[in-house]
Amino acid sequence: MSESLRGAAVIGQSGGPTVVINQSLVGYVEAALESDAITHVLGARHGVQGMMSGDLIDLGAESRDTLKRIARVPAAALGSVRLKPGKEDVARVIETLRKHEVRYFFYIGGNDTAETAHIVEQQSAELGYEMRCFHVPKTIDNDLRVTDHCPGYGSAARFVAHAFQGDDRDNRSLPGVKINVVMGRHAGWLTAASTLGRRHEDDGPHLVYLPEAVFDPQQFLADVEAVYMRLGRCIVAVSEGIHDANGKPFLQVYAEQSGSAMAGQADSHGNVQLSGTGALGDALANLVKEHFGKIRVRADTFGYLQRSFPADASPIDQEEARRVGRDAVAAAISGECTSGSIALRRVEGKPYHCDTFVTPLHTVAKHTRDMPEEFLSGHNAVSEGFRVYAMPLTGSIEPMADLAAHAVRGSAS
Amino acid sequence: MSESLRGAAVIGQSGGPTVVINQSLVGYVEAALESDAITHVLGARHGVQGMMSGDLIDLGAESRDTLKRIARVPAAALGSVRLKPGKEDVARVIETLRKHEVRYFFYIGGNDTAETAHIVEQQSAELGYEMRCFHVPKTIDNDLRVTDHCPGYGSAARFVAHAFQGDDRDNRSLPGVKINVVMGRHAGWLTAASTLGRRHEDDGPHLVYLPEAVFDPQQFLADVEAVYMRLGRCIVAVSEGIHDANGKPFLQVYAEQSGSAMAGQADSHGNVQLSGTGALGDALANLVKEHFGKIRVRADTFGYLQRSFPADASPIDQEEARRVGRDAVAAAISGECTSGSIALRRVEGKPYHCDTFVTPLHTVAKHTRDMPEEFLSGHNAVSEGFRVYAMPLTGSIEPMADLAAHAVRGSAS
Repeated sequence: MSESLRGAAVIGQSGGPTVVINQSLVGYVEAALESDAITHVLGARHGVQGMMSGDLIDLGAESRDTLKRIARVPAAALGSVRLKPGKEDVARVIETLRKHEVRYFFYIGGNDTAETAHIVEQQSAELGYEMRCFHVPKTIDNDLRVTDHCPGYGSAARFVAHAFQGDDRDNRSLPGVKINVVMGRHAGWLTAASTLGRRHEDDGPHLVYLPEAVFDPQQFLADVEAVYMRLGRCIVAVSEGIHDANGKPFLQVYAEQSGSAMAGQADSHGNVQLSGTGALGDALANLVKEHFGKIRVRADTFGYLQRSFPADASPIDQEEARRVGRDAVAAAISGECTSGSIALRRVEGKPYHCDTFVTPLHTVAKHTRDMPEEFLSGHNAVSEGFRVYAMPLTGSIEPMADLAAHAVRGSAS
Repeated sequence: MSESLRGAAVIGQSGGPTVVINQSLVGYVEAALESDAITHVLGARHGVQGMMSGDLIDLGAESRDTLKRIARVPAAALGSVRLKPGKEDVARVIETLRKHEVRYFFYIGGNDTAETAHIVEQQSAELGYEMRCFHVPKTIDNDLRVTDHCPGYGSAARFVAHAFQGDDRDNRSLPGVKINVVMGRHAGWLTAASTLGRRHEDDGPHLVYLPEAVFDPQQFLADVEAVYMRLGRCIVAVSEGIHDANGKPFLQVYAEQSGSAMAGQADSHGNVQLSGTGALGDALANLVKEHFGKIRVRADTFGYLQRSFPADASPIDQEEARRVGRDAVAAAISGECTSGSIALRRVEGKPYHCDTFVTPLHTVAKHTRDMPEEFLSGHNAVSEGFRVYAMPLTGSIEPMADLAAHAVRGSAS
């Protein structure tokens, strides 16, 4: 493998957006423009969809000012796609890329995206077309294997931690039971971040339910009751992916049991829709209301704000997302390997820092990574280890201040 | 009326919290500590509830550092309350205040809070107890009369504008119909703020439904269809207070027509629960799904984040909230009037600035203020006049950047 492979480069964005995915895009453009091996710096609209249809744009022609500003814009500036391309689709992708003399293929996304990069690599090799294929990691779910964490997660975690800090104060003002549903169908990383703004033992969330544990509605009600009896209020963080012992989503179980119309709302894969609806939060709130009778119960579903809110990104996450884009280009033109995924490795000691390295595509593709045992604590809490792991990624969450609140002499306090 | 009325001061917080309500609290403490007329600087927990039960704290004993930090903490640091006190309740309030020699009564909140302050003033006058009673304005709903705008609104508007900017980019990445439900049961001020981050004609939200107009589901579907046909996507901002021609909430109409279990979920006043549930967004999403068949439709309900998210407050709003707290104290000790509500008056010219003045309590109590005709545009949009009015209050919303996106020669773009 020579270092001197010359040709155009193309990048695509795939899967659910994040607020730093365009940092990686701009990192790619900057590094590609600096490289002699790369003749044209291209982008495909809506990922492989644009590569199939030939919908490419010239990212090398963007001004420095536009690049600087677009890096801070949430979601995929090129457009995203949810498509696992079949063999013929990939053949069309390669046909387009060959036509534009693309020798460097980059794809920003999660594990499905890594798998697509892997397929593109294999199929272009079979066709005898030399092309280097790299995956650039991104997902608010933080569920990629190998890497210490995923760009996109730190900012989403920061948003969720801040959201719970504010909601905890709101709930102290007007007490009751408050349930907040957090994104993450398979892994609890983002829901666990709800705890990062806590300072005192009575700060919310008081209960945290992750897909890594079995969700038992009766246990849930007992947990809420215990907290409510102690504090007169209770804040609950719930992953959208909570499920029973058979792995069936709680919402599906609830809908079937209550004979609700919800039961019919499954997609073509048989999955109940979990994002972009308040159904899970409302179902849990109904359970609590039925159990307790007359207390104030509210549910919020944080929804797409978690992956798109533009005004609270993690500075660390922004920097790392930019860097994995740059380093993907550096790895590709170095020729040390012909393909791979960029991963982060935490350097021991303080201050926090991660290096990047290249891991083979197949180690990241397909399967995801749950939270490890040592980050969980019982069935409804997370460990101090998780806090140590996750806090630096958010750029740190300042604890909220409290009044000293000295009682006035002769008053009831 | 002498200027030399000496005695303690007390403050309470009431109604739904905001992210700047503690700025007003700290403004009060700072100004009260500077005044010779005020002997003790007290706070009541949970508003009149704490005044009834004698649950008072010594805010004058808080450290400068705590005050500085608590000002930036969302929601009511003293705790809030939703209680319209009866005659006996108010008698108990006055009894407590008399016991602590309170001569200055301050109450932070919306129109109901102003009414309570008015009742406390009248009843203490009837009892021959001299006490100055001032209302300090606060509400994310921006629906108080007389004042140019309400502290708390600018920060909530900033959050909503940013949320829609991010969601618009998310929706461009993965197109579909997206419905976002915004707080504001009676007035559309906050929902209208969804438009403040728009730059281009095709930026979302594309449709805005406010309680100031009648909501017609058939018209709504026709509107969505027209936008979707034109752009291939559609973002909708909906106030939680949308209603039919008789003023009946849309959600209630929908629930009754669909025979859903929702219909039973009214509170003791017969109001359907609108906040802390995703039901309205889900109902609208169902309507769109039934109408269009297979397109991607999602709904988010922004919920309590709008009034409690700690990391995106408007600097202008923070400053003004602090100032109305200070100026309430200044007005009370000046003795120029014995009661009133602090209001903001916009000074002509640039840069934006508001002065404060005192308006009688009865002019603010009870009734609220809808958006005026000139801020509306048809049944599903807001006017440029609204933008000019609201933008300064948010601390300004930066437009999102766009790629120039030059098509590559020989590509389909």
